[in-house]
Amino acid sequence: MKYFLLTLLCILQTLALFGQTPGIDKQAIAKIRDEGLNRSQIEELTYFLTDYSGPRLSNSEGYQRAAQWAVAQLSEWGLKEAHLEAWGDFGRGWQVEKTYTAMKAPYYFPLIAMPKAWSHSTNGLITGEVVVLQADNAEELDQYRGKLAGKVILFPSDDTSAPTFKPDATRKSDEEMAKIAAPPVKKENRYTAEQIAQYWAKRALQEKLDTFLIQEKALGILRGTRGRHGTFFTSNGGSYATDAPWRLPEWEMAPEHANLMARLIAKGEKVVVEAEAQTRFIEDTKAYNVIAEIPGSDKKLKPELVMLGAHLDSWHAATGATDNAAGCIVMMEAVRILQACELKPKRTIRIALWSGEEQGLYGSRHYVKKHFADQNDMQLTPEHENFSAYYNLDNGGGRIRGIYLQENAAAKPYFEAWLAPFSDLIETPTITLQNTGATDHISFDAVGLPAFQFIQDNLEYGTRTHHSNMDLRERLIMDDLKQMAVIVASIVYHTAQAEDKIPRKALPAPAPSPYE
Amino acid sequence: MKYFLLTLLCILQTLALFGQTPGIDKQAIAKIRDEGLNRSQIEELTYFLTDYSGPRLSNSEGYQRAAQWAVAQLSEWGLKEAHLEAWGDFGRGWQVEKTYTAMKAPYYFPLIAMPKAWSHSTNGLITGEVVVLQADNAEELDQYRGKLAGKVILFPSDDTSAPTFKPDATRKSDEEMAKIAAPPVKKENRYTAEQIAQYWAKRALQEKLDTFLIQEKALGILRGTRGRHGTFFTSNGGSYATDAPWRLPEWEMAPEHANLMARLIAKGEKVVVEAEAQTRFIEDTKAYNVIAEIPGSDKKLKPELVMLGAHLDSWHAATGATDNAAGCIVMMEAVRILQACELKPKRTIRIALWSGEEQGLYGSRHYVKKHFADQNDMQLTPEHENFSAYYNLDNGGGRIRGIYLQENAAAKPYFEAWLAPFSDLIETPTITLQNTGATDHISFDAVGLPAFQFIQDNLEYGTRTHHSNMDLRERLIMDDLKQMAVIVASIVYHTAQAEDKIPRKALPAPAPSPYE
Repeated sequence: MKYFLLTLLCILQTLALFGQTPGIDKQAIAKIRDEGLNRSQIEELTYFLTDYSGPRLSNSEGYQRAAQWAVAQLSEWGLKEAHLEAWGDFGRGWQVEKTYTAMKAPYYFPLIAMPKAWSHSTNGLITGEVVVLQADNAEELDQYRGKLAGKVILFPSDDTSAPTFKPDATRKSDEEMAKIAAPPVKKENRYTAEQIAQYWAKRALQEKLDTFLIQEKALGILRGTRGRHGTFFTSNGGSYATDAPWRLPEWEMAPEHANLMARLIAKGEKVVVEAEAQTRFIEDTKAYNVIAEIPGSDKKLKPELVMLGAHLDSWHAATGATDNAAGCIVMMEAVRILQACELKPKRTIRIALWSGEEQGLYGSRHYVKKHFADQNDMQLTPEHENFSAYYNLDNGGGRIRGIYLQENAAAKPYFEAWLAPFSDLIETPTITLQNTGATDHISFDAVGLPAFQFIQDNLEYGTRTHHSNMDLRERLIMDDLKQMAVIVASIVYHTAQAEDKIPRKALPAPAPSPYE
Repeated sequence: MKYFLLTLLCILQTLALFGQTPGIDKQAIAKIRDEGLNRSQIEELTYFLTDYSGPRLSNSEGYQRAAQWAVAQLSEWGLKEAHLEAWGDFGRGWQVEKTYTAMKAPYYFPLIAMPKAWSHSTNGLITGEVVVLQADNAEELDQYRGKLAGKVILFPSDDTSAPTFKPDATRKSDEEMAKIAAPPVKKENRYTAEQIAQYWAKRALQEKLDTFLIQEKALGILRGTRGRHGTFFTSNGGSYATDAPWRLPEWEMAPEHANLMARLIAKGEKVVVEAEAQTRFIEDTKAYNVIAEIPGSDKKLKPELVMLGAHLDSWHAATGATDNAAGCIVMMEAVRILQACELKPKRTIRIALWSGEEQGLYGSRHYVKKHFADQNDMQLTPEHENFSAYYNLDNGGGRIRGIYLQENAAAKPYFEAWLAPFSDLIETPTITLQNTGATDHISFDAVGLPAFQFIQDNLEYGTRTHHSNMDLRERLIMDDLKQMAVIVASIVYHTAQAEDKIPRKALPAPAPSPYE
C-alpha cells in the first residue's frame, strides 16, 4: 500500500511537472522531410551565405551583401515583413582592401597573415627589421625604449603546431554526449580573484604596450596565433568605436611562419619583413538584423510568436561558413521548407539573422530589449507575454544531436515528443537540462523567455574553423545541414501548433548583461 | 634418410645464402645510444637544415646556404674531405623574390598561393578577370580563342577538401607493417597502354595550352591543388633547362581559395584577381652534392666504403622539413655520434647530401656514375668492388620501423643482428625483401651496389608535408629523429666493422634510368 501511494505520488508529480504530452503531426512531418531531404536548397543557400557574401564582419560590405540578399530571398519565398531592422549604433564597419606580408631577409618567404579586425592601414609598403618583444610588465617594456623605431614587432605563437594524431573532424562520442546529458552543476564563479586580477593586469599592460609602440615609432605588429598547416585564428581586434584612437597596423598570422622568424631571431639572424595593409573603416554606424515572418493563420494564436535565428555576422579572415553561415543556412532552409509545404502555422513564426553577435550578442540583445524586455530593469512589453520560444543555431555545421533546455525542465516533454519521429536522423536525441552560453539564445533567456540552442556535432569547429582563416564553404557537410533544417522546421512548426506556448522558467531578476 | 638429406640440404643452402651471423659490438652500441639520446644535436641540426637554410630547391640560394653550412659543420666535427662535389650541369637555379595574390572582386580576399617552381615573373602587378578554362582536347580549347587577352586562367582543384575524420599524423599500423613484410610481388607494367596513351595526350594538350595562352595574351595561371586548411601541394614546375621557352607566370594555390573563385564564376559573378610574382633564375647551372668522410682506421679495410645519405634539395614553398631535411639531419647526426664516440671505424664511412633528387635523383645518379658504374653500360670502376653498402633516408620524419632489402635476401641476417639490440627503440623491426623506390638508394641499386632505404612511420607525410607549403620545422618530432640517428649510426658502424662487405645481388644488366 505504501508503495502504491508512493508510485501514485510520482505519477502525479510527473503530470504536474510536465503537463500533457504534446502531440505530433505526422502528416506535416512527412511533408517537411520530403521537402527538406528531396528538394533541399541547402547547397544553394550555402553558396549565397559563404562564397557570394564573403566575410561578414558586422557593418562591413560583406555583411550588407548577405543581409540584403537574405531579405530579398525571404521575401521571394513569401515570408512577410522581410526587412533590415535597425537595432542601434554598432560602431564603425571595417574591411580589408589589401594585405601583403612576407619575410624579406635572411631569405624571401611569403607569410600567411591577415590584418586584425579594425586595425589600421600601413602607409604603403613598410619594410622593417623584426623584433620579438617579451615583456611581462611595464618595467620589462622599458628595456626596449629607443630601440623600436622602424621595427616590426613580433609576438610568436605559443602553439607548437606539432603533428596531430587526432582527427580534425569528430562527431560527439557517447562519452561526450553522456557528459552533456548529465544534470547541470551550479558553477562557481568561473574565474578566481587572482585570475581576474591577472586579466586586468594583462589588459593594462597591453594598453601601455600599444601606446609605447606608437611613441617608439614601431611600424607594425605581427602576432602568431594557435593553429597549424596554414590555419590560424583571429581574435577580438581593434576597436570599432568611433572615437577609438589610432593604433599600429597589426596582423594575426600562421604560427609556423611567426615562429620561423622568432627562431631565426633567437639565433641572431637579422629578419626583415615587408608588409602592406589597406583597411577601410565604414563610418555608417547604424546596424541591422534581418527579420521576416510567416504570419500565424489562427486568429487567436497569430499574435503569439515562435522565433528562430542565427547570427549572420562572421569574422573577417574567411567566409564564416561554420560560424555562422551554417546556422543561417539551416534557419532559412527551415522557413523555406515550411513555406514550400504550405503548412500555415497557427502562431506567427519569425526568423532573425543577427548582427554584432561576435562582439557581444548586440543584435539579439537590442532586439529583445526593444520587443520583449530590458534585462537591466526587467520591464516587460506586451509582446513578452505572447512569446512562445526562440531556437538558435551557432555551434558550427555539425548535425543536431539534441537540445539544451537551459534548466527549463517543463519544456522537456515537448522536445521528447517532437524529436521522437526523427530517430533515423538523430539516433538517441539528448535533451539536457544543461545550459549552454555565448550565443544569441542567451539574450532571450536573460529576460525569462524560453530559448534553446541545439546540441551539435563538433566536426572541425574547435580544431579548424571557429574564428579561423579557414572557415570556408569546404568545411560544411550538406547532409548535416539538411538533417538540421528538417528537424528545426518540424520543431518550429510544432511549437507554432502546440496547445500552449512553451512553458517558462521563473522570471529572472534584473541583471546587466556580462557582454556590456 | 630422405628427410635427413633434405634437411641437411636446407641447412647448407641457408649457410651458403646467409654466411656467418654478423656480430654486434655491445660497447659501441652503448656509446652510440648515450651520445645520441643524451647529448643529441638533432634540435640544433633541425634549425640549420630548415629555418636557417630556407627552401632548398636545387641550385637556389637556399640550397647553397644549406650545402655550405653542412660542409663547414661536417668539417668542424672532424670529418675529412668535406666538400661540395660538382656532379654536372643541373640547369638553372630559381627562387621566389616576391609573390602576392588576391581576389579583388566581387570582394577583396587574399589567396594562399606560391609561384610554380621555375615559373616566370609578372610584369609588375597584374590585374585581370578570372576565367575557368575547361578543355579536354584541342578542339575544346578553340572555343576560348580571342577571349583570353588580359585574363587570368584558373584551374580549380578537384579536391573537395571536405572535413576529415582521420588523423593527419599516423604511425604505421600492424596491418600496414604486415603488408610491407610480405614477400615482394613481381609487378606487371605499372601502367596500361591506355594509361600511357592518356598521359601523353594530356601532356601534348598541356603544351598546346601553354602556347595557346601565350598567343592569346592571357596574364597568368592559377592552379588549385589538393590539400585543405591552408595546405597545398607543389608539383613539378616550369623548366630549369637553360633553353626553356618563356611561359606564363603560374601559381599553385590553396584548393579552397581556387574553388571559391570557381564557384563565384559558375554563378556568373565577375571575379578579378590582382597578382605579382618576381622570380629569379640563377644562371650558374653547375650542381653540387655535399660529401664528407670518416676515413677507415684499418689499413686493409680503409679503401672499402660504407655510405649514408639523404637529399638536401627540397621544393620551394616551404623549408622541406620532412622532405628531406629530416633525412639530412639524421644522417649528419649519425656521423656526428660516430665522431663523438671516437669509434674509429675500420672501413671508410662517407656521407652524401644529394642535390637534384626531386627532379630525377640527379645528384646521386651522377655520383654513382662517376665513382662506381654507369648504369647504361655497366662499366665498373675499381671503387665498385670496394663498396659495402649505402643507407638512405627519404620517407619523412617518422621513426624507423625496419628496412627494405630491395630483394637482397643475403643481407637479411645482418640487419636482423644489427637491429636486435634496439628492441626498445623499434619493437619488432620489419626486414622486408620488398623494394621501395623513388629516391637515391635506387641510383646505387641500379648498378648492383647494396643500397637500402629504411621503413619509416608516416606521420603527416602523405596528408600534409610531402611537397607542400607546410613542410616546416613544426612537422618534425625530435624523438623520432633521435631514434633514427642512433639506429643509423649503429648500422653504419657495424657495416664498417663487419667481417665482410654486405653481400650483393647479381649484377643487373645495363639499363637506362627511368628518370632520364
